Amino acid sequence: MKTLRTLGERKIIEIIQNHLSIMPKMPIPFGDDVAAYDVGRGKLAILKTDMLVDKTDVPKGMSRWQAARKAVVMNISDFAAKGVNPLAMLVSLGLPRNLSQKDVGEIGDGLNAGAREYGTYVIGGDTGESSDLIISLSVFGVAEEGKLMLRSGAKVGDFVVVTGFFGKTSAGLKILVDKLKAQPALRKALVDSVLMPHARLEEGLVLSQTGAVSAAIDSSDGLAWSLHEISKASNVGFSIDKLPIASEAEKFAEANKLDPLELTLYGGEEYELVLTIKPELWKRAKRAVEKVGGQLLRIGKVTTEKRVILDTDETKRAIEPHGYEHFK
Amino acid sequence: MKTLRTLGERKIIEIIQNHLSIMPKMPIPFGDDVAAYDVGRGKLAILKTDMLVDKTDVPKGMSRWQAARKAVVMNISDFAAKGVNPLAMLVSLGLPRNLSQKDVGEIGDGLNAGAREYGTYVIGGDTGESSDLIISLSVFGVAEEGKLMLRSGAKVGDFVVVTGFFGKTSAGLKILVDKLKAQPALRKALVDSVLMPHARLEEGLVLSQTGAVSAAIDSSDGLAWSLHEISKASNVGFSIDKLPIASEAEKFAEANKLDPLELTLYGGEEYELVLTIKPELWKRAKRAVEKVGGQLLRIGKVTTEKRVILDTDETKRAIEPHGYEHFK
Repeated sequence: MKTLRTLGERKIIEIIQNHLSIMPKMPIPFGDDVAAYDVGRGKLAILKTDMLVDKTDVPKGMSRWQAARKAVVMNISDFAAKGVNPLAMLVSLGLPRNLSQKDVGEIGDGLNAGAREYGTYVIGGDTGESSDLIISLSVFGVAEEGKLMLRSGAKVGDFVVVTGFFGKTSAGLKILVDKLKAQPALRKALVDSVLMPHARLEEGLVLSQTGAVSAAIDSSDGLAWSLHEISKASNVGFSIDKLPIASEAEKFAEANKLDPLELTLYGGEEYELVLTIKPELWKRAKRAVEKVGGQLLRIGKVTTEKRVILDTDETKRAIEPHGYEHFK
Repeated sequence: MKTLRTLGERKIIEIIQNHLSIMPKMPIPFGDDVAAYDVGRGKLAILKTDMLVDKTDVPKGMSRWQAARKAVVMNISDFAAKGVNPLAMLVSLGLPRNLSQKDVGEIGDGLNAGAREYGTYVIGGDTGESSDLIISLSVFGVAEEGKLMLRSGAKVGDFVVVTGFFGKTSAGLKILVDKLKAQPALRKALVDSVLMPHARLEEGLVLSQTGAVSAAIDSSDGLAWSLHEISKASNVGFSIDKLPIASEAEKFAEANKLDPLELTLYGGEEYELVLTIKPELWKRAKRAVEKVGGQLLRIGKVTTEKRVILDTDETKRAIEPHGYEHFK
């Protein structure tokens, strides 16, 4: 009999799905970042749930306030990746008995801070007793049919772009979890990227208006994993010619004799968007994102061959589909 | 510093709410059975989340399949109480590491059985590792503004009605948890009411169409608690002249020298609807419910005095606001 550890999170999700009847005319297939229900008149109700469990999702050094805010960011990031505005959220809280009234207040404050940061509200919820601290959020939004940025639309020749540099959170986690060292200012930047993540909501919302995006996903399971997910869903490959390594991650890798590529490709808890863009609309997309204070970095292009290749001046190698996975 | 045990579930929810910004123009206030978001054109998106945690919500003798199905019923029951059709559900699963692949399949089957029983589908979700088995569901539906059955509309003179008899689940829990005894056939009926609860969805849906209902709630925290919740939200009182005691609960109480009133009033995990009905539309409401195979039992009337009184031929006493509460 296989245990959950041998199965891993993704296989477990597949097993659950195989036991569920599929709703006829699902506007989005199982496995994209959000689910959708067709409410008619060309509108889709967009739904998402994501659960934070302290023992796997809250590293040492993260406060309860930060954990609650992170639970919001995790969920908003998926809405960002689909270009959908989060209109309202519900929270299901599992609380360990040893928490105090003050702890509960901090969790409430963290939820609210996260919600308000992205212009939304927590409008209801439920609470019960559990061994771990559990913060399960569900988010509601409305999208126009056809405007949703799915994982499945990447076309050969499209540009591969990301909304920021990678590697800081994996470095930050090595500091918090594995006790690696860094200079104070560098340490702060890396640790902050873990404790105070940001969802690229404004970027996602303006990008969905440009019509430039052919596929999109967030990078919460790591850059490599995100590329492979788009590759699978769109039936294309990628050639990455410029790895978006954060300079802080590079410094940290050098000081600790780590591979900066590993930090960049196989991190996680990183909430950038990974997108493919129609080349003729690249400038429009870039301008739209810069107008809201963000950035779009071109890192490669979509290819016919169904592989994800790193192909820079220095290196040519396959990017393997590893990424963070619960239970493993 | 107060602990969660001294606070109790309801106070904890209040604390969380006090830390949340309130969305302007909330169509339903915090604390009703569901939350709502105004999507325009006279329509409300209806949202609900409720979390099942095995260590408090799954009695010994309940299988994983039944637990997963129960998690669905808990959520659907709140939609039933508001007269709203559940269109789609998401699931957040927290799974202990020692579960097997077969266990996961059973949970999937139980979720699906519950969803299909009420004409809905699980269309997405998330999974992670946790110490307890956690099944957090969120439900989406659409309601017409003004048709929603809230807790707050009961008027003096309205009839108090319920959709079934009470006391079986509290008796069943005494068998499963406290090892009390009963004759085989009786035991089966009582235990089944716990293991295989049913939400009164059809009843709720047809009742919302009659326009007869002035206030409604489900009885998952017990009959007494439900009456007090409507009383508080509607600013009225109740005089109950006929307690809806299930004959099985009466037999069980007699054999075990228990108070049948206690079983009936202070149970929980019971998914009947508790409603107030405009007297002039009572017959219409009763017929509508009977047409879908259900029943409506008149148990009292709404009064001016803000108390909940049991006033039968044998007894006159106050019904105290106790009910099942997590953490206590």
